[in-house]
Amino acid sequence: MFFQVIDILGTIAFAISGVLVALDKRMDAFGVLIIAFVTAVGGGTLRDVMVGVEPVSWMTNMTYVYVIIASAVGAVLLRNKIQYLRKSLFLFDTIGIGLYTVVGIETGIVAGLHPIICIALGTMTACFGGVLRDLLCNEIPVIFRKEIYATACILGGFTYFLLREFVADTNFIFVIAGLVVIVVRLLVVKFKISLPSLYKIKD
Amino acid sequence: MFFQVIDILGTIAFAISGVLVALDKRMDAFGVLIIAFVTAVGGGTLRDVMVGVEPVSWMTNMTYVYVIIASAVGAVLLRNKIQYLRKSLFLFDTIGIGLYTVVGIETGIVAGLHPIICIALGTMTACFGGVLRDLLCNEIPVIFRKEIYATACILGGFTYFLLREFVADTNFIFVIAGLVVIVVRLLVVKFKISLPSLYKIKD
Amino acid sequence: MFFQVIDILGTIAFAISGVLVALDKRMDAFGVLIIAFVTAVGGGTLRDVMVGVEPVSWMTNMTYVYVIIASAVGAVLLRNKIQYLRKSLFLFDTIGIGLYTVVGIETGIVAGLHPIICIALGTMTACFGGVLRDLLCNEIPVIFRKEIYATACILGGFTYFLLREFVADTNFIFVIAGLVVIVVRLLVVKFKISLPSLYKIKD
Repeated sequence: MFFQVIDILGTIAFAISGVLVALDKRMDAFGVLIIAFVTAVGGGTLRDVMVGVEPVSWMTNMTYVYVIIASAVGAVLLRNKIQYLRKSLFLFDTIGIGLYTVVGIETGIVAGLHPIICIALGTMTACFGGVLRDLLCNEIPVIFRKEIYATACILGGFTYFLLREFVADTNFIFVIAGLVVIVVRLLVVKFKISLPSLYKIKD
Repeated sequence: MFFQVIDILGTIAFAISGVLVALDKRMDAFGVLIIAFVTAVGGGTLRDVMVGVEPVSWMTNMTYVYVIIASAVGAVLLRNKIQYLRKSLFLFDTIGIGLYTVVGIETGIVAGLHPIICIALGTMTACFGGVLRDLLCNEIPVIFRKEIYATACILGGFTYFLLREFVADTNFIFVIAGLVVIVVRLLVVKFKISLPSLYKIKD
Repeated sequence: MFFQVIDILGTIAFAISGVLVALDKRMDAFGVLIIAFVTAVGGGTLRDVMVGVEPVSWMTNMTYVYVIIASAVGAVLLRNKIQYLRKSLFLFDTIGIGLYTVVGIETGIVAGLHPIICIALGTMTACFGGVLRDLLCNEIPVIFRKEIYATACILGGFTYFLLREFVADTNFIFVIAGLVVIVVRLLVVKFKISLPSLYKIKD
């Protein structure tokens, strides 16, 4: 129940972020809806397709579909007021990333995959909705240029497998690893930490 | 037999539309062929992969492959004369969209998915070949900016499930729902109907 | 063992080609790593997903993962010296294409698909990593404009099925078909052969 609320908050935040980019590109109602969907479920879809979980999970869980449609309609109607929600949206988004990362990791574990692959699947679940959104909007994915989520997801993933060595309680591991993602991302944003640049300043 | 003829006409129209966009981007022979394929079978491929119908259906039906190759070669050779075929192509394309929509819906039904998901799969089958074509040609998908097909597909999809409440004959439902897609699209184009804009005129 | 060495050399060459494009786009460390992966395993992933080999093959073979990570790190560190390795990289890349083509063909044969589909899968395995790389870097795929690999892959594919009519030794067929891809590509590059243009000179 608690996880489901978190999941829905994350989905809302992802869908709204898609709507905002789509409106910026002046897409029509259909385009806005598709971009909302792709942003919210694109990462999980890619994960499911690569692992072989088919039909992909959102297709068998109508909650996502209704939440995304409602978020998209709401975001279009209230778009001039969304700036007042920016802080809440950022928080939901961050919580969503934490949850998506752990859900992705567990999909990999169920499929019997290596921990590194599981961490990659967690990161993919959390980050590739945004990659697909940017691709469909004809932009180089923002996450490839100015890293926002990925390091947090990867650190959360390592935490997950580290804890598994010492702790048996899966729910506990789930929560702690998700919290690591969330806290790392909050710190990264608050203190404007970024990966060391690959390019010299004079570049 | 009748459906197969329609299917082939739709595939020809989709493949030729791919060729025209690829020539416009000055692609070479290989690029033109790939774009023809992607436009014709991309929507169905995405549907099959997400639902778990693998190998994807065009890979086990060589008719598509031959038709697409022949259409691509024909379109390249006759490209200066294709403008005279514009009306026929538009008609084939529209018929193809109607058929693809219903085929997509039925794939979803066979997989036991919710009606809304089935309608999404139908729309995806009809529309996402064009989305992938535009993506590979480095354009924002035209369907996201100036909606052409999607509303027709969605209305056809609702018709399909509405009829299912009252009618038992699947072939009849198939034909009527496909016709709704076709007629709606013809009306939309003839009367230049578009979705209400999300943007104020002054924008 | 011999094939595994070739496979690793090909993977290294593909990953490095991804790193170079990503650095050119000024991506950050995460983006560079993802593009290295996509270039190296993207073609095989697409093939596996369309045929239904899931989890996709690189996810169950950690060698690829380690080789790609090491290649990416190495290429970033030594990027100013990579120009001295250009000839070796070109050779590895060509060998990799030959191998990937035959591996892709054999995936299709195992799935019981038609020879033309198998050749398409071989070409996809060898070429679509680069297509996905260009897509994520917001470029029209270079292979669609200035054909580099595809003809070689297709000719190698025809050789494979031609030999199968006369020869029983699968390893022999594998090697010869791969060599055809390699030799054709070397000749194409050496003699600057290109497909006949679809466009008149005055265009």
